[in-house]
Amino acid sequence: MPYGTKSLATVERYALENAEFLASIGIKMLVVACNTASALALPAIRSHIGIDVVGVIGPGGRKAVEVTKCERPNIAVIATEATVASNAYAESIRRACENASIYQAACPLFVPLAEEGWTNEPETNSIAEKYLSGVRDFKPDALVLGCTHYPILRDVIQKTVGENVRLIDSGEATAEEVERILGQKGLMNPNVVSGDRSLCDDLDHFYVTDAADRFARVAERFLGAKPSKLEAIEIFGKDALK
Amino acid sequence: MPYGTKSLATVERYALENAEFLASIGIKMLVVACNTASALALPAIRSHIGIDVVGVIGPGGRKAVEVTKCERPNIAVIATEATVASNAYAESIRRACENASIYQAACPLFVPLAEEGWTNEPETNSIAEKYLSGVRDFKPDALVLGCTHYPILRDVIQKTVGENVRLIDSGEATAEEVERILGQKGLMNPNVVSGDRSLCDDLDHFYVTDAADRFARVAERFLGAKPSKLEAIEIFGKDALK
Repeated sequence: MPYGTKSLATVERYALENAEFLASIGIKMLVVACNTASALALPAIRSHIGIDVVGVIGPGGRKAVEVTKCERPNIAVIATEATVASNAYAESIRRACENASIYQAACPLFVPLAEEGWTNEPETNSIAEKYLSGVRDFKPDALVLGCTHYPILRDVIQKTVGENVRLIDSGEATAEEVERILGQKGLMNPNVVSGDRSLCDDLDHFYVTDAADRFARVAERFLGAKPSKLEAIEIFGKDALK
Repeated sequence: MPYGTKSLATVERYALENAEFLASIGIKMLVVACNTASALALPAIRSHIGIDVVGVIGPGGRKAVEVTKCERPNIAVIATEATVASNAYAESIRRACENASIYQAACPLFVPLAEEGWTNEPETNSIAEKYLSGVRDFKPDALVLGCTHYPILRDVIQKTVGENVRLIDSGEATAEEVERILGQKGLMNPNVVSGDRSLCDDLDHFYVTDAADRFARVAERFLGAKPSKLEAIEIFGKDALK
């Protein structure tokens, strides 16, 4: 990481290598939880992996249409440069509602601001004003937070675009879709109670490809606690592209 | 890139792969112009490459000592997380002057701010105030700009730490060292007039390992003009570590 400034070919290669590693340890479903990897690499991953693969773009886009009831909605998307350039969110939203007006903006500084944990600093407010002035002028009904890191800055973003704009967390929308698919296919783990984090903590297993210490520190901002089971692995020069 | 948030092993691997590629096209000297790669990977590169290898840490550290005359100087260093953690600048400065007092600070947002080209925005001033308050309290005689991107923010940094602090651009210090070594070894190109950029433009040849369009756009901020000869190459899964 970051994926948001890399080319299609590189994002695809990294995403495929990661996906093949995860498939090799015996998972029942793969969630591509990175918006940039979802936007650029989902077809490649699906054609290489023999299990269900869920990205965050489809669920996020559909959710935005759902909450705005699809009556000529204005839907804004903020994401990385690569995700915006891919147009994947616009396509996902149009598939769900062809009348939607769409506005996209890249917010490159939001990722490093979230990683610094600057959720409430005046600088973050001021940068949000700059990045989101176009979004505000567009008067969106919903705004998709199209990058894993942006929900960390949710309060600043909501304040900047106005309280009446519905924020869509693609991660939440994806979790709902995962629950639905697992239920349909009878793949749900009967021992896990929905919403009970304490049980999940025992089941979580994090694999990181680099800088495990840094990951643990940054992940705490997202999870509310240090990742319990964290394992450094090496994925490079593998034959993922065969 | 960015290298500043990656582990020693990963920075070393990338730097070695890049160095071996450059050595393979027949260069007479290698300048490792990235501070993080210089801090972490110089010994590995030197042991793999049969030509002169110059990093930016040594020249930058020595220059800081030189301009402060080494009378118990206070020398501050700002750099990436990885460069600060490596302690390479502190070691380089102490080798040149064992009486030096040293203060180091990581400034993670400076790289993305420089890439956005926000050299004169109020947000950049305000972030510089936050990052550099410790530097200012330290009352440095010299401040080393220990990351390729920081000279882009030179004016903001100078204003924040005060006009009496001597800013050290490691890139400039390294260029002086390169000129000296080439001269000593009789390797200077007699056709290039020092300081004549127009001639250099014809000689420059940029190889990029990813996202060439993005590189061209960002490089313009550093070079003052788009890179003239830009070539995308693939370096991965090579046998650099053998």
